[in-house]
Amino acid sequence: MDMSNIFSPISAELNTVESQLTHNLDSYVEILNHASHHLVNAGGKRLRPGFTLLAGKLYRDCLDEIIPVAVALELIHLASLVHDDVIDNSDTRRGTETVKCGWGNRISIYTGNFILARALALVAQYERCDIVDVIADASMKICEGEFIQMQSCYNVNLGLKNYLRRIERKTALLISVSCQLGAMLCCAPGIETNALQKYGYYLGMAFQVTDDILDFIADEKVLGKPTGSDIKQGVITLPALYALKHAPDRQELADLLSSPELCNTYADRIIDIILDSDGIDYAYFASRYFAQKAKNQLRYFPEREVKKAFLDTADFILERDF
Amino acid sequence: MDMSNIFSPISAELNTVESQLTHNLDSYVEILNHASHHLVNAGGKRLRPGFTLLAGKLYRDCLDEIIPVAVALELIHLASLVHDDVIDNSDTRRGTETVKCGWGNRISIYTGNFILARALALVAQYERCDIVDVIADASMKICEGEFIQMQSCYNVNLGLKNYLRRIERKTALLISVSCQLGAMLCCAPGIETNALQKYGYYLGMAFQVTDDILDFIADEKVLGKPTGSDIKQGVITLPALYALKHAPDRQELADLLSSPELCNTYADRIIDIILDSDGIDYAYFASRYFAQKAKNQLRYFPEREVKKAFLDTADFILERDF
Repeated sequence: MDMSNIFSPISAELNTVESQLTHNLDSYVEILNHASHHLVNAGGKRLRPGFTLLAGKLYRDCLDEIIPVAVALELIHLASLVHDDVIDNSDTRRGTETVKCGWGNRISIYTGNFILARALALVAQYERCDIVDVIADASMKICEGEFIQMQSCYNVNLGLKNYLRRIERKTALLISVSCQLGAMLCCAPGIETNALQKYGYYLGMAFQVTDDILDFIADEKVLGKPTGSDIKQGVITLPALYALKHAPDRQELADLLSSPELCNTYADRIIDIILDSDGIDYAYFASRYFAQKAKNQLRYFPEREVKKAFLDTADFILERDF
Repeated sequence: MDMSNIFSPISAELNTVESQLTHNLDSYVEILNHASHHLVNAGGKRLRPGFTLLAGKLYRDCLDEIIPVAVALELIHLASLVHDDVIDNSDTRRGTETVKCGWGNRISIYTGNFILARALALVAQYERCDIVDVIADASMKICEGEFIQMQSCYNVNLGLKNYLRRIERKTALLISVSCQLGAMLCCAPGIETNALQKYGYYLGMAFQVTDDILDFIADEKVLGKPTGSDIKQGVITLPALYALKHAPDRQELADLLSSPELCNTYADRIIDIILDSDGIDYAYFASRYFAQKAKNQLRYFPEREVKKAFLDTADFILERDF
């Protein structure tokens, strides 16, 4: 099972999204064109437009009207990646050179801003201010999340609640909004829009927890970035949180994780302590819990190919590359 | 004459804007609160909200409905300043420490994004997608302008057209939109909305030309940044363009302006060549031309206190600190 199989009910529409992504970033400013097309061509799972389209497919066969918001959601995601790469000083993402690496900070910041403005223009077309409002609110919360993540680095005294809030802002919120907007644009009943929004939320939580697990156990080729990146940056994720409470060497772990220098120098030792605890298993249970909560939201919907795609995505999240 | 006199017909509303600016940047994330409030407290002329309110005052006494978009326009302006300070690596602006200097690049980028999202949320309230569309379109063009400016640095072969496009994107566009939106929110007749939009455009052009003159002749205290900043960064403005064509030492000037190292080392010599040409006078004439074009747009409006404020602003632009 892979995402292209799961997304087969909307494969034609996803192709349209792909060409619209490119088309929407056309600019007569050549360097901006190059940088933003490089970003789109670097690929990605297109999860967010995928969910918007799937949600729409629950209600309609023809999704032409939903395509622009699906494109906008991927643009918002891409814009956040360009800025993140500046901030994290990352040279590769998904195994490809970042815009920051190829064009520098200055161009990356403006490229991110340009892509955001483009997304906004797409959303404005709908004459639906409730849609703009959902996106504005999510954008603010996502920004706040970046601050929370920044302030939480190297802090071993923060618990589960802080972690959950971080991954909610980082990942769950935009996936949740993607599902919600697909339903809203089809004028779905409130209870169903709400269920899809919650599905996206829990699925996003499951997705980020598995991402955080992969950072410990997947190899560089699968990740498209070095293993242990989080630890090296002092980002304390669920397996580390568990180990900080339960590992026999938890005091040593706390000492190492508290310092930027030690995190970098002793990353291998830190990872060993975490792998030796049951931190990975614990995180895996958490991701299953969230995936199950996501699936439970689908009870309102009749058994159809589209519902199966939503269910399969939740299962797929749990299986990726373990 | 100063701006607070000119803006006296809307002084109460500008006070409301000021407190709303602060209120809208409240966040439970403390560091974000500090950084963004620092930015608002650093002051500024609040030209953009001023124009929106003045445009509204042509049609209505009570401007409560216009306040949120006026606040949003200032937020968009402030967000662009935070990002510019990261890109230009500036430590002071208006004589005050920048967010970049106090909090670093990472926080500055996210603060800018947060402020933009907040502006978007304010605009979404209106349920007027034509308003969102105007703002999205302007945002894209402003981003493109940053690229044009970046690519134009140290390039002595670009002429007047390139300069005019740069200052249009950098300054005129957002001031133009500020006037336009004030009229649109009052459902002004198309011909008047159009005239106000053009007024803002020409006034913004005049404003930026005088800003570019001041960079050569005002002292650091007035500017809030070092004299000759543009030259040191290879930004070729109108006085330099004139000197490149007409100064006796134009070949030497072209050689110096073509290289980042020489621009920095020989900034004083470059400025001398430009001051010795008639570049400043020429630019002053250009700013008068634009200010007059701005004033001409007001012919549709009856003689009232508000119209006088628009006219006075155009005159004020020409007088600032010369």
